[in-house]
Amino acid sequence: MKASGVIASLIEQLAKLPGVGKKSAERMAYHILNVPREEADGLADAIRAVRERIGKCKKCGSLAEADLCAVCSDSKRDASVVCVVEMPRDVSQIEKTGAFRGLYHVLMGRLSPLEGIGPKDLRIKELVGRVERGGVREVIIATNATVDGDATAAYLEKVLRGRKVRVTRPARGLPAGSAIEFVDAGVLGEALKARRTSEEG
Amino acid sequence: MKASGVIASLIEQLAKLPGVGKKSAERMAYHILNVPREEADGLADAIRAVRERIGKCKKCGSLAEADLCAVCSDSKRDASVVCVVEMPRDVSQIEKTGAFRGLYHVLMGRLSPLEGIGPKDLRIKELVGRVERGGVREVIIATNATVDGDATAAYLEKVLRGRKVRVTRPARGLPAGSAIEFVDAGVLGEALKARRTSEEG
Repeated sequence: MKASGVIASLIEQLAKLPGVGKKSAERMAYHILNVPREEADGLADAIRAVRERIGKCKKCGSLAEADLCAVCSDSKRDASVVCVVEMPRDVSQIEKTGAFRGLYHVLMGRLSPLEGIGPKDLRIKELVGRVERGGVREVIIATNATVDGDATAAYLEKVLRGRKVRVTRPARGLPAGSAIEFVDAGVLGEALKARRTSEEG
Repeated sequence: MKASGVIASLIEQLAKLPGVGKKSAERMAYHILNVPREEADGLADAIRAVRERIGKCKKCGSLAEADLCAVCSDSKRDASVVCVVEMPRDVSQIEKTGAFRGLYHVLMGRLSPLEGIGPKDLRIKELVGRVERGGVREVIIATNATVDGDATAAYLEKVLRGRKVRVTRPARGLPAGSAIEFVDAGVLGEALKARRTSEEG
């Protein structure tokens, strides 16, 4: 007897999660079969709930339960500073530092010629629109400190050059080659505070 | 902004899975938010499906989609040999070796004084019942090669002593201290083939 069809299918689905191999997926599946029914249903419901209730913020593109995300709808945030990040998880990571009081703009990715991702696949037009509508004094480009992230930042600097806005990047206190998602909150907070104006190329 | 309520709740649920810490749970949650909706729903459905469709086999206590599991309902299996294991995942592990053609009996745990698990909490009465109803020539006690697993095996040997049945244990080719769940299939297959009769204590 192999694992029954439904169990095999659950193992396959679990193995699609990041960092989960075949063996871990098997352990998780048997765990799910072994816990009280309410706990298993709770997990299934939580997965459905995030996809049903979480959409994209109409302004910054981050995750939101309403039209606007919690940051964009907070009148105490400084709307004159916009921090550009690759993904929504980067917003949550920067929020944890407590070092930033402005708004965000989520690109939904990075430029990647190898993966065929160009400027039109990212929310760059929307960023330029926000700058053109005025009221933005500074754009902090906090893409990942990776090859693709740096290339994306360089592209954005070029696009924003000549528009009346200060363009900065977090101080390169970020360990090179690291992804924002995994950086220690203290290191990330320091890097944001020590951000510098982009040099004109 | 902290992660929104529904996201925080999903992260909490995911962190209950074995081997999943807070960071991994966060990565999984953002992955679930980022994949096509059908993939997220597929995972939720698979979790619900195993709990709705998988029950316990009325005979051996292993996982089953019907009254009897695939092994117990297979007339080509040798009903005169019963392999006793701690958990359903051990059945699936032994089946992978292809070295065993008999039936199973799942205890649903092991004796553990520290956790307050005694003989009445395990399916021992059901095992004795199967032996007393006759037709069982050999009982292989394949509990984990751990302190609790060995204590459980010793208890079962005592309970079955004097009944007309051969009681064996897999050869101690299993690395001591290991859990059946994680043993290499080849090692486990060899150990089952080289099983030995219990010495009378």
